[in-house]
Amino acid sequence: MATAVNSAKAAKTKKEAASTGAIQIGIEYKKDVDFPKWYQQVVTRSEMLEYYDVSGCYILRPWAYRVWQEIQLWFDREIQELGVENAYFPMFVPAKNLEKEKDHVEGFAAEVAWVTRGGNTDLEEPLAIRPTSETVMYPYYAKWVRSHRDLPLRLNQWCNVVRWEFKNPQPFLRTREFLWQEGHTAFATKEEADKEVYQILELYRQVYEDLLAVPVIKGIKSEKEKFPGGLYTTTMKALSPLLDVNFAKMFNISFEDPQGPLPGGEARPPLHAWQNSWGLSTRSLGTMVMVHGDDKGLVLPPRVAAVQIIVIPCGINNKTTDEERTSVETRIADILKELKKAGIRAKVDDRATYSVGYKFNHWELRGVPVRLEVGPKDVKNNQAVAARRDNGEKVTIHHESLVKEGLRDANLSYITEWKDFVPALDNKNFCMIPWCEESSCEDEIKEKSARTGIASTEVQDDKAPSMGAKSLCIPLNQPQDKPIVVGETKCVSCGKDAKRWSLFGRSY
Amino acid sequence: MATAVNSAKAAKTKKEAASTGAIQIGIEYKKDVDFPKWYQQVVTRSEMLEYYDVSGCYILRPWAYRVWQEIQLWFDREIQELGVENAYFPMFVPAKNLEKEKDHVEGFAAEVAWVTRGGNTDLEEPLAIRPTSETVMYPYYAKWVRSHRDLPLRLNQWCNVVRWEFKNPQPFLRTREFLWQEGHTAFATKEEADKEVYQILELYRQVYEDLLAVPVIKGIKSEKEKFPGGLYTTTMKALSPLLDVNFAKMFNISFEDPQGPLPGGEARPPLHAWQNSWGLSTRSLGTMVMVHGDDKGLVLPPRVAAVQIIVIPCGINNKTTDEERTSVETRIADILKELKKAGIRAKVDDRATYSVGYKFNHWELRGVPVRLEVGPKDVKNNQAVAARRDNGEKVTIHHESLVKEGLRDANLSYITEWKDFVPALDNKNFCMIPWCEESSCEDEIKEKSARTGIASTEVQDDKAPSMGAKSLCIPLNQPQDKPIVVGETKCVSCGKDAKRWSLFGRSY
Repeated sequence: MATAVNSAKAAKTKKEAASTGAIQIGIEYKKDVDFPKWYQQVVTRSEMLEYYDVSGCYILRPWAYRVWQEIQLWFDREIQELGVENAYFPMFVPAKNLEKEKDHVEGFAAEVAWVTRGGNTDLEEPLAIRPTSETVMYPYYAKWVRSHRDLPLRLNQWCNVVRWEFKNPQPFLRTREFLWQEGHTAFATKEEADKEVYQILELYRQVYEDLLAVPVIKGIKSEKEKFPGGLYTTTMKALSPLLDVNFAKMFNISFEDPQGPLPGGEARPPLHAWQNSWGLSTRSLGTMVMVHGDDKGLVLPPRVAAVQIIVIPCGINNKTTDEERTSVETRIADILKELKKAGIRAKVDDRATYSVGYKFNHWELRGVPVRLEVGPKDVKNNQAVAARRDNGEKVTIHHESLVKEGLRDANLSYITEWKDFVPALDNKNFCMIPWCEESSCEDEIKEKSARTGIASTEVQDDKAPSMGAKSLCIPLNQPQDKPIVVGETKCVSCGKDAKRWSLFGRSY
Repeated sequence: MATAVNSAKAAKTKKEAASTGAIQIGIEYKKDVDFPKWYQQVVTRSEMLEYYDVSGCYILRPWAYRVWQEIQLWFDREIQELGVENAYFPMFVPAKNLEKEKDHVEGFAAEVAWVTRGGNTDLEEPLAIRPTSETVMYPYYAKWVRSHRDLPLRLNQWCNVVRWEFKNPQPFLRTREFLWQEGHTAFATKEEADKEVYQILELYRQVYEDLLAVPVIKGIKSEKEKFPGGLYTTTMKALSPLLDVNFAKMFNISFEDPQGPLPGGEARPPLHAWQNSWGLSTRSLGTMVMVHGDDKGLVLPPRVAAVQIIVIPCGINNKTTDEERTSVETRIADILKELKKAGIRAKVDDRATYSVGYKFNHWELRGVPVRLEVGPKDVKNNQAVAARRDNGEKVTIHHESLVKEGLRDANLSYITEWKDFVPALDNKNFCMIPWCEESSCEDEIKEKSARTGIASTEVQDDKAPSMGAKSLCIPLNQPQDKPIVVGETKCVSCGKDAKRWSLFGRSY
């Protein structure tokens, strides 16, 4: 069996790596024993982040930034669907504006960074760097909103903010500069504002549960980590959008009563807008690391991983013939091509200067969800060995079903018949299906795919009652090798014409 | 003719608008007469931008930010294809780091904003806000690059930068805070670095010419605007990526010579990396406004416009029956649906409280590329009236060809036969074609679609020799109503199996 051979090879090369010092780049602390040190090593050695010259500021390296960008792309598309528009407001706040909202400024005053000089000239009035943008935006909201016809006003911005905290800084979790989105919206009625709160809350839940695979509620309730609990809670608090009219009153964001003047001809007093604000920051990356990471390092959820499958040539040594080497290279090139075609982010580590064991450690430390091992014997037997990062499971896969299995390991199934849908969900997979995109059909799917757990005396962990599946997104990158043919391809659930491949999944 | 009726109606309602004061929101200055005032009115009244409390800082409103985001999405995808990765570095630079590169700091010292206080505490060392990130990034490049195996290192970041200029600020063009991307890359050889310079230059050219419809070279050479020429040139300078080893020497970004030690066993001196840096900023939006805007206001190029087609119900008055009103509403809903399906960003202005003339001015001022007028008579005659913003041309379009003509007005043709390809290009259109995606085929398309201008004695403006067409992009949003069927749909040029719809166009 190629598997056995490869494993032996891996064990041997791991030893080699140790003797050449390569193992030193691993994680030296146990998550259970010294959580803070474990966390710091994981985020730096996985190359997510680098400590910077200024305390409390960190460099987000590509391995972390990619996760943030995946969140950004997804969330941005969703809020634009809701009718929110992006804008960009300046980062400087004149002192007098910051002080306009007393409670607000008291909450932030102690941690505001002040610009006092431009070039060699002292500024007449110091400028705060935004810790958040209420005091930047709302004076202009007051200017732009005159009539109920100017509402709703729904703006979002992606930007950096600064909070000059003096407590212990922590990568991602407590940083002096961080990236976030902040949505600030104004509505004529409380009903509309309420509705948005619910919509945004649901999107945040999806970011955590579906993209980062962090069960939100469970995360809050069963938090056992030794890391100061408050931090974790703070991060989770980001999930509660704020609804208020206080700011509208403070900044006088008001509009004429659409009812017009009173019967006597006297003007009605202006109404104040209902406002929401909501933000999601790079702190979420810290939560992801804490929840999934293990003693080997980072564990990345497939949907946000920069590399979802790493392919490593194995079992090549002095006795390997040139022909065998070439066969491995050719096979790997084929595999990469197929994976790419199926929309999977795959990469080969063909660096000749590193041992196989070194490479295993390297990609485990970085949390790549699936490792694929291909050696000369695998090529001969038309197979490959796949290892999952999260549970360490290793399976030998036949070449023909490699993409399918690769997808399965990435928790993603392409489903074209209803009979396969619920079993795939039960297998904790996301399902990509040709879909009609109709709301009534989505309701039906949700109902049909719920598990009510009737035989409750026999409930096992994996047979527990569970929610029905909901649509998660309609991918911009539609699978190239399985096009939807209008009038031919049918919706997997209702049988009407399918419009596009759409992703469905159950919530945790 | 519905056209005539609508025009008369428009003329009348324009007068009405004038009498109710609505015309006041138009542009009061002529581009030819007072360019600076014209420019300021266009950017503010089109709602691209709002002046902010801090001099030299401006609010980018959704109408401008959307243009920036379209540039960002396109450019980001292109550089990732080249192998560039995104990261995020802190915005604070310790004084001592900023001073590391003498020439560099001299260029920026006079315009650096300094943070000197955090909360109520003076900082031990003042922190500069990045005017650009060489001094932030390169010390870490030096740390990360040890061996030629660590190269190339190709990072990009999207961020805000601050240059505390004291000269006259100008919206977009000279601002104290602006948004940009900055790419900083390091290579082992000059050849690789050279190659990247060429690639990035080509991408910047495409941003200007294909997205913003600003002919780059022509723009520099024939610049006749009264606006200070230097500014314009500065913006264009962004098109020249920088290639240098100076920074590598200054920050000691070096690597072991891959040749190993000298024959005598002595180590070879380390080699310095070849570095490029390249940036594109929101200044490009100012260029776009200056080049295309006219006395009516902004003129947006279709590819970056938030709204590409604005649909306005027309010819509705006291005599209009309920049935007619409903027929117009239904027709407009159909049109919007069709346009959306074809991937066009369309919107209806059905505000009951504004006159048709007011709406015409409103959307002209904002530069929407095409206005579509639909009245009861249009519905009866199964047609609509389209007006182009750039040249004012008005045509009556039959309903069946509306999407096609809408596309044409957006300078976009869907082509399925080669015979239509060159004529569409000659018509200054971009062409979307089913394409095999092979390089040899692209070369052939370029050759076949060039116009050599052989009959040069008869050359007219629109028959001048011109470059052949090149692929501009493979859209992520593939048209939903015309799916590529693998094995059936053929490449328009070579007849092999088509992979995806791809956009081709000629350069100016």
